[in-house]
Amino acid sequence: MKNYKISIIKGDGIGPEIVDEAIKVLNAVAKKCDFSLSYKEYLMGGIAIDTTGVPLPAETVEGVLNSDACLFGAIGGEKWDTLPRELRPETGLLKFREEMGVYANLRPAIIYDELVNASTLKPEVIKGVDIMIVRELIGGIYFGKPRENDGFKAFNTMVYTKPEIVRIGKTAFELARKRDKRVCSVDKANVLEVSQLWRDTMNELAKDYPDVELTHMYVDNAAMQLVRNPKQFDVIVTGNIFGDILSDTASMVVGSIGLLPSASTGDKTAIYEPIHGSAPDIAGMGIANPLATIVSAAMMLRYSLNEDKAADMIEEAIKAVLKDGYRTKDLAAFDAKEVLNTSDMGNIIAEYI
Amino acid sequence: MKNYKISIIKGDGIGPEIVDEAIKVLNAVAKKCDFSLSYKEYLMGGIAIDTTGVPLPAETVEGVLNSDACLFGAIGGEKWDTLPRELRPETGLLKFREEMGVYANLRPAIIYDELVNASTLKPEVIKGVDIMIVRELIGGIYFGKPRENDGFKAFNTMVYTKPEIVRIGKTAFELARKRDKRVCSVDKANVLEVSQLWRDTMNELAKDYPDVELTHMYVDNAAMQLVRNPKQFDVIVTGNIFGDILSDTASMVVGSIGLLPSASTGDKTAIYEPIHGSAPDIAGMGIANPLATIVSAAMMLRYSLNEDKAADMIEEAIKAVLKDGYRTKDLAAFDAKEVLNTSDMGNIIAEYI
Ligand SMILES: CC(C)[C@H](C(=O)O)[C@@H](O)C(=O)O
Ligand SMILES: CC(C)[C@H](C(=O)O)[C@@H](O)C(=O)O
Repeated sequence: MKNYKISIIKGDGIGPEIVDEAIKVLNAVAKKCDFSLSYKEYLMGGIAIDTTGVPLPAETVEGVLNSDACLFGAIGGEKWDTLPRELRPETGLLKFREEMGVYANLRPAIIYDELVNASTLKPEVIKGVDIMIVRELIGGIYFGKPRENDGFKAFNTMVYTKPEIVRIGKTAFELARKRDKRVCSVDKANVLEVSQLWRDTMNELAKDYPDVELTHMYVDNAAMQLVRNPKQFDVIVTGNIFGDILSDTASMVVGSIGLLPSASTGDKTAIYEPIHGSAPDIAGMGIANPLATIVSAAMMLRYSLNEDKAADMIEEAIKAVLKDGYRTKDLAAFDAKEVLNTSDMGNIIAEYI
Repeated sequence: MKNYKISIIKGDGIGPEIVDEAIKVLNAVAKKCDFSLSYKEYLMGGIAIDTTGVPLPAETVEGVLNSDACLFGAIGGEKWDTLPRELRPETGLLKFREEMGVYANLRPAIIYDELVNASTLKPEVIKGVDIMIVRELIGGIYFGKPRENDGFKAFNTMVYTKPEIVRIGKTAFELARKRDKRVCSVDKANVLEVSQLWRDTMNELAKDYPDVELTHMYVDNAAMQLVRNPKQFDVIVTGNIFGDILSDTASMVVGSIGLLPSASTGDKTAIYEPIHGSAPDIAGMGIANPLATIVSAAMMLRYSLNEDKAADMIEEAIKAVLKDGYRTKDLAAFDAKEVLNTSDMGNIIAEYI
């Protein structure tokens, strides 16, 4: 029987609760599909600061690199917001992404028909939306040097090199090939030199993918078009900070941020996590929605472990559970027949499997 | 009788058509309110390139600086997109903003009750939205140096100094005082040093405005909150590129980009323009919506000429015209009784005045 080594980072806030449910579901599906999973837990974020003094212990870096894939909850909280920058949870997260070499952050925005009313956008505008946002994750202004703040003047550097752009571009084009074969590259080439290089490089790369259509859009227009007519998009590829902003916009188009998974992949390993944060305000109350983490686990099965059937089973179970009217509190207003707590939602999905 | 010197930049695409209608309305209101306006036209953008070889002739800079205020249409078009960067219409626009010293770009996002259905967002989400976005316009990554593209590596610099932040912050706090007394400052301080200085400076400045509430929001969250619950915002203040993105998102919240005006102000002069572009695809067809430019003219009366009564009259005429079911083509789907062309829309507003 195949065994996979999964590294687990629960993190802060609701992180532990939602990851526990995803593990429950993973175990259920593994049993059905004849493989096994062994888990090892590592620390990151606030809990790592409290336990070890740093947001990203070396042990975590090593452990995750030696696993087949990493399932991650969420980190951060007010408690650690006033620490010096190098000790904050976010700094740990950014360093983690860099050390893992996960340059491609995939954020699918898909509508569940049952939840089409959960969005503030009109149902006819969002029904059928299926966007894959490919965000560059370990470059751009997040990591660019020089960076400085002397209290009077502060600056950051938005920088990309051609190989970095080619690498993320390839990810986008390859993904588009398995989808609707359209890539929209988002930049601000009418103002920024770094965007001009981005655009020129994408155009060059497009020659290797004659079967995929490449278009370009300015980031301000893209932010607008995501709200105006999200159905026009297939794959969106963009830099780190533009991707940060646009993927959050896209999550609202879909409605509940409690449903959206993400994968961060590179050449060494991959990290799967919900796109929502650690929600310290509801931590420990048992009302967090574990679905985004469970869908992230399904992505892990599909992309890192090649267990497509198991991934399908999770996704179908979620659809069935939603169809049958089970909801967590955040979705209670949308055709709920029964409102479940975090753990019961995990249970019922495991059951449906 | 008071006379005001207005500089006019019609620009490219639909620019000339929409500015003509605004002038028509300005003349109508001036007659009623006992002041006069004298106009002088200047070139910028594509038409300036075609006529003089550069996108921003020196004469334009001088002329606008010597006027009481500037009414501006829109610039740009595919025709000039392949020119070297320093000759493009956008480069002219950025240089113009810099030379005019217009550091504060005010973009109100207000819903007209009559057009509450024009948005892709649900009416109950947007009814009553009244946001003022204050975007820093002549700093940040748009103008930061060094900037370079050597074909392999390219970079830009996002930079702010404390005085720049104080200046735009004051604009926001002062505006909030005349509104709902709430400022939300948007940054990415969990990642960027330049945002940390922004946030620290806003916090310091807030001490001078104890009557105004200051909150902070990360830019990704702000992009999300604008779609999730736009009513929560009063004044939003943010840097150049974040403001570029967020104000376009906000325009979609409101629905029609054909309705939204903007003012760019500083210590030397002010420029009033619609937030939409030059729309070359519909130029010369007589179907462009002149309302955003006409509202911009009203802003000019209010902010630069202190002719509040005249501004009110224009705004009321627009509301009445919309209420009576007059629409331009872009808004034909929203309770139109009669669809007017560009010039007839200008005529009827002038008439209602
Ligand atoms: C927490 C923060 C540093 C992070 C980011 O900006 O990348 C988050 O917003 C995300 O999108 O994962
Ligand atoms: C045309 C472009 C340079 C400009 C900007 O980015 O500022 C436009 O998008 C705007 O918002 O006025």
